[in-house]
Amino acid sequence: MSIFKKSAADVFTQPVLEVNLNRLIDNYKQLCQIIAPAKPSAVVKDDAYGLGAAMVAKALYEKADCRDFWVAHAVEGQKIAAEVPDANIRVLQGIGADSIELFEQYKLIPVISSPEMLNYWKAHKIEGVAPVIHVETGLNRLGFRENELAALSRSDIKSFSMVMSHLACADEKDHFMNQHQLDNFKKIREKYFADVPACLSASDGAFLGADYAFDMVRLGAAVYGINTAPYRPNQMKNVVTVKAPILQIADLAKGEFVGYSATYRAPTQRKLAIISIGYGDGIPRSLSNVGRVFFNVGGKMCEARILGRVSMDNIICDVTSIEGLKVGMFADIINDIYTLDDIARDAGTISYEIVSRIGKNARFKKTYVLD
Amino acid sequence: MSIFKKSAADVFTQPVLEVNLNRLIDNYKQLCQIIAPAKPSAVVKDDAYGLGAAMVAKALYEKADCRDFWVAHAVEGQKIAAEVPDANIRVLQGIGADSIELFEQYKLIPVISSPEMLNYWKAHKIEGVAPVIHVETGLNRLGFRENELAALSRSDIKSFSMVMSHLACADEKDHFMNQHQLDNFKKIREKYFADVPACLSASDGAFLGADYAFDMVRLGAAVYGINTAPYRPNQMKNVVTVKAPILQIADLAKGEFVGYSATYRAPTQRKLAIISIGYGDGIPRSLSNVGRVFFNVGGKMCEARILGRVSMDNIICDVTSIEGLKVGMFADIINDIYTLDDIARDAGTISYEIVSRIGKNARFKKTYVLD
Repeated sequence: MSIFKKSAADVFTQPVLEVNLNRLIDNYKQLCQIIAPAKPSAVVKDDAYGLGAAMVAKALYEKADCRDFWVAHAVEGQKIAAEVPDANIRVLQGIGADSIELFEQYKLIPVISSPEMLNYWKAHKIEGVAPVIHVETGLNRLGFRENELAALSRSDIKSFSMVMSHLACADEKDHFMNQHQLDNFKKIREKYFADVPACLSASDGAFLGADYAFDMVRLGAAVYGINTAPYRPNQMKNVVTVKAPILQIADLAKGEFVGYSATYRAPTQRKLAIISIGYGDGIPRSLSNVGRVFFNVGGKMCEARILGRVSMDNIICDVTSIEGLKVGMFADIINDIYTLDDIARDAGTISYEIVSRIGKNARFKKTYVLD
Repeated sequence: MSIFKKSAADVFTQPVLEVNLNRLIDNYKQLCQIIAPAKPSAVVKDDAYGLGAAMVAKALYEKADCRDFWVAHAVEGQKIAAEVPDANIRVLQGIGADSIELFEQYKLIPVISSPEMLNYWKAHKIEGVAPVIHVETGLNRLGFRENELAALSRSDIKSFSMVMSHLACADEKDHFMNQHQLDNFKKIREKYFADVPACLSASDGAFLGADYAFDMVRLGAAVYGINTAPYRPNQMKNVVTVKAPILQIADLAKGEFVGYSATYRAPTQRKLAIISIGYGDGIPRSLSNVGRVFFNVGGKMCEARILGRVSMDNIICDVTSIEGLKVGMFADIINDIYTLDDIARDAGTISYEIVSRIGKNARFKKTYVLD
């Protein structure tokens, strides 16, 4: 299906997702320099934020010597195991009766976040696997609390290969929570885990300075091009491009309505382009009447507003002032000038949610760029 | 992986999605009665709204004699073709250079929505396949406009096996747009397609009365349990159940914060349950601080509010007033009393967007109920 039957009057129907692995590797390497001498590791949970964990992990393993990976679930570890032989695959949601067979088969490393999970682990230990302990420092999500740490035995403590926590507000450089969690983490480490390698920061914490780096940093969102330090311009390269074909161009008379529930009414005559992409492809419905798409017309990027509701398979946009469009041309939904961060802001959410949704849709023609 | 290793102290990490195909078939059959004598057809686009098109189409084919299916893209037709031999699979986004090989291979039926696509079709006709023509009646999305219909030749018109359009506001019984589109569709049909089978309504239109039924109705959202007639109680059965395990239960001291960006602060001491599901599983981030989950404690359904931001892999909820919870028990995210329609309302969107997101996540343990 990679070779289209082309002709002058060609039309297209399928949206296209391009993942630029060259840039993804560049981002990873740049982050490695920022966090050095701490050891880097790659977060490829949630199918590498929807971009394809097997492809992403393999690229980082082969082209950037990454040997430490984090996933959320054992089923995600299973997906990358064959691509990253001899690497450490740590599983953030931990281990349970529904996943232990995968841990055994692929020698996955569980992150233990509660006394109950530790008890489960102790009853089902896997030879040669030393778990990570997750300690709570202020996010109030997963992790051992102070009283639970105090109840650990010496041999419990000695069984862990790493101690980790997670920052709540690291994308705000001056948020009081950063120093608060850093202090908590240091205290816990000194008290219980003085000799255990430590890991506190994800890719937002990578920009908070050397104090936050410890022995290992979990590099995720920034690797995928998201600006995790939004208080300054993005230093990462855009990794994600989404395009979708124009199915139809049509006039809209003054006073007519567009889309479900007739939420847009034309104040004057308009020209519409109907694009073959919608929330079924992961384009948030919250972009209804507020989102934007772009058209490259003779090298010039022209912006068009989304009119009416985003529907499952289509968006409709206002191309009244754009000359030279034709059915079969493609609209840019995400590109280097309108990135994940931009579409997320317009949709009222964060880039992480956008990218995590888009990549999972089987009807994309998905391509990877890799030298 | 379907047989858990069970013990008294078991913990679990993986969310569970259950699709009740018995109920889905019941919904379809109920809708068939409502629209009779019009012919039913099933909309299984977007991977059957995320629930698994192959499973859904096969069940409707075998248990409800469905022989007419609609998908959005040819790649979706390919997915169900083997499950529904000799059925008609119509492709709503139409045909193009990027999909023609699949149309040829699986004898898919394109829906032609523009003169450009018709020209493409005439240059690449497939023996034995008679396309559908989509006409525009007021949604101002896809479909031939009046001036484009007037330009069709006699032989163009004779080549179509069906004429279709789509309603913009059929979920509002008294919306002026319904009658407006019905009138337009009738006029177009009489003028150009008097002898061609006609299809106007989807499952919201199914409840608008016999005038809207014509020869075939496209049954989609209501089959999946969504209330497409929200001006009265839902007549459909719930098809979707989502559960996720409690990973941890912990105290939260007065004045402490919860989750990213510290958006929730405890006014008094609270008890938290951390659940293994998040926006990476399709739970909208817009449920942050407003969503709800449920716990079945000794047969009683207890409601718990989501505190702080929904994160990629976890939600945190307030279980202060719920006794008897333990790590390893499951929270109900969607069930028979808190349905797709309920979670969509809380999230500020429509059920279609919720279900379309959830089912696509590979880390769900996905089960189908079918007698």
